[in-house]
Amino acid sequence: MIFSYNHLFTFTEAVFRSIGCPEADATTATEALLAADLRGIDSHGVARLIGYVRLWEAGRINPTPRVGVVYETPSTAVVDGDGGLGLVVAPKAMQVALEKARIAGTGWVSVKNSNHFGIAGYHAMKSLAHDMIGIAMTNASPLVAPTHSLDRLLGTNPIAVAIPAGEQPDFVADFATTTAANGKLEILQRKQQPAPTGWIQDAQGQSSTNPNELKDGGALLPLGGETGSHKGYCLGSVVDIFSAVLSGANYGPWVPPFVAFLQPPADPVGQGIGHFFGAMRVDAFRPATEFKAHMDNWISTFRQARAVDGQQVLIPGDPEREMAAERLLGGIPLLETVVQDLETVGRKFGVHL
Amino acid sequence: MIFSYNHLFTFTEAVFRSIGCPEADATTATEALLAADLRGIDSHGVARLIGYVRLWEAGRINPTPRVGVVYETPSTAVVDGDGGLGLVVAPKAMQVALEKARIAGTGWVSVKNSNHFGIAGYHAMKSLAHDMIGIAMTNASPLVAPTHSLDRLLGTNPIAVAIPAGEQPDFVADFATTTAANGKLEILQRKQQPAPTGWIQDAQGQSSTNPNELKDGGALLPLGGETGSHKGYCLGSVVDIFSAVLSGANYGPWVPPFVAFLQPPADPVGQGIGHFFGAMRVDAFRPATEFKAHMDNWISTFRQARAVDGQQVLIPGDPEREMAAERLLGGIPLLETVVQDLETVGRKFGVHL
Repeated sequence: MIFSYNHLFTFTEAVFRSIGCPEADATTATEALLAADLRGIDSHGVARLIGYVRLWEAGRINPTPRVGVVYETPSTAVVDGDGGLGLVVAPKAMQVALEKARIAGTGWVSVKNSNHFGIAGYHAMKSLAHDMIGIAMTNASPLVAPTHSLDRLLGTNPIAVAIPAGEQPDFVADFATTTAANGKLEILQRKQQPAPTGWIQDAQGQSSTNPNELKDGGALLPLGGETGSHKGYCLGSVVDIFSAVLSGANYGPWVPPFVAFLQPPADPVGQGIGHFFGAMRVDAFRPATEFKAHMDNWISTFRQARAVDGQQVLIPGDPEREMAAERLLGGIPLLETVVQDLETVGRKFGVHL
Repeated sequence: MIFSYNHLFTFTEAVFRSIGCPEADATTATEALLAADLRGIDSHGVARLIGYVRLWEAGRINPTPRVGVVYETPSTAVVDGDGGLGLVVAPKAMQVALEKARIAGTGWVSVKNSNHFGIAGYHAMKSLAHDMIGIAMTNASPLVAPTHSLDRLLGTNPIAVAIPAGEQPDFVADFATTTAANGKLEILQRKQQPAPTGWIQDAQGQSSTNPNELKDGGALLPLGGETGSHKGYCLGSVVDIFSAVLSGANYGPWVPPFVAFLQPPADPVGQGIGHFFGAMRVDAFRPATEFKAHMDNWISTFRQARAVDGQQVLIPGDPEREMAAERLLGGIPLLETVVQDLETVGRKFGVHL
């Protein structure tokens, strides 16, 4: 079933209003959430709306958070999300990073006491209109085993980096620090198809292609898979430490789960989940026009590389940008089960899908 | 053959003096270069001394560079390496990052007109004594094909992140953004053993296990290998852009080669190779004692994870730190061919190995 962006926007905004979000926050959260659907990262978009609502029902989302800076220097801040939606907290924290960068050249904000913030790329891209490089990362509940570990200690901990170009479309990298994002595994589970080698291990730490392995004590593998997972382990660790040890959020196995039916650990080491944002003015390094002309050259050089037969060398962000253009015009397709979930949520609040 | 650290230090310092480095720079360069041998990254250590000497003979190393800041804001700078040894330029640039961080909370330095700087981890670790997080990256000559590309457009572009702990040893991640570092491939070439799948592609972009493939138009694969190289491609690209497009160095296919027998591209888009350094005071986010206590907890939690039979969960930096302790006491083993190269260099300058 296909829905227009505007239709889903009105519905989602009404749902966020219904759980008590102030009007401006409901709009902010909706824009952040639907950015995932527009960009084709269906696992992180409106399909998760019911999850946020259930967390609110469980008393684990504060719909009226007082989000604020609790510690700062000229180029840094720690933001306390006050238990709010990550979809509301993250844009405010990124705004702090952008303001710091305006004055100090760069701005770096670590966030505690937040919740899932949707897709990292959306937040990083807020820098682009200001001729800044944007960086966004977040920790997440533990599904990933460090190299040689049987225990799951890290989340899929994504990193996004957005870099402005001139004539060319901007460079936007956004990726989980695992071989495969959890969303891709969910698709295989639904289709009951095996996963490629290097995505998952079983409860004994052995290679597995069973997409349901995580339910039986298995784990996702860090980026690099079976021959180089120590590098993905390094990356995922850095995201965890920047997001949570710097801010005072929960880290490693203490990160609270997104799903309401699982309880957060009883012995937290911090508050909520953590994020980390960065903004760097490109003209804090060289004139912006010069930088952007070289980015154009970088991008066109890479895009014009000779490619393997039938393929094309893409620039990070190309597929998502094309998908967004397509879906803005042609609408957003939703799975039957997602539509049912939205209808369930709608009935709860008297909002019509 | 085994040499003591002090013996190699005296020899290497004398060689750098012989090519015209001022005394302080020769000491700086030697310490940076030998950090690789101490930490067990043999491909980047004294084995490369002859390579630096040949670059100097080819007129591509300035032994008396005027390294300086050419552009800055409170938290950023661009450093011009004036064609010097990366081993000299990088420590000076990292020093600028540390000084910026002392005042502004963080410091970020992009470097142009430099040469290879040894191992990234050494430079990142300069932050640790100041209770700062250190970041170091560099671009390098193109050996890596972006996803779907037949052309080699990126270097192995490493990233290092050093994070201070309290009682526990510090966290030091240092890794190439390829599945395998070039040094590991060189070892297989020497032994004439096949490479694991996912390390390299042939000239047609097909999977290969031939360790000599790069000589025949093949390429290294970005981190993630055959199922997820787009993520390593993103990472390597970010390193290239931060190191060179921000600073005005050469990027992508224009990065000059380390080996003197290959000429740099005739149409440079910038000056020399580029690096990028970052320093973040941990007390720009929360009190350092608090941060370090949580890092200790993070590290001991991960180290104590249940492990696959016969294995142990390591913390990034563990193997290199243990190797350094061992080699400081027991000496540094060098391959026969490396000893011969050093003797050749020694004879040239009347320096005895």
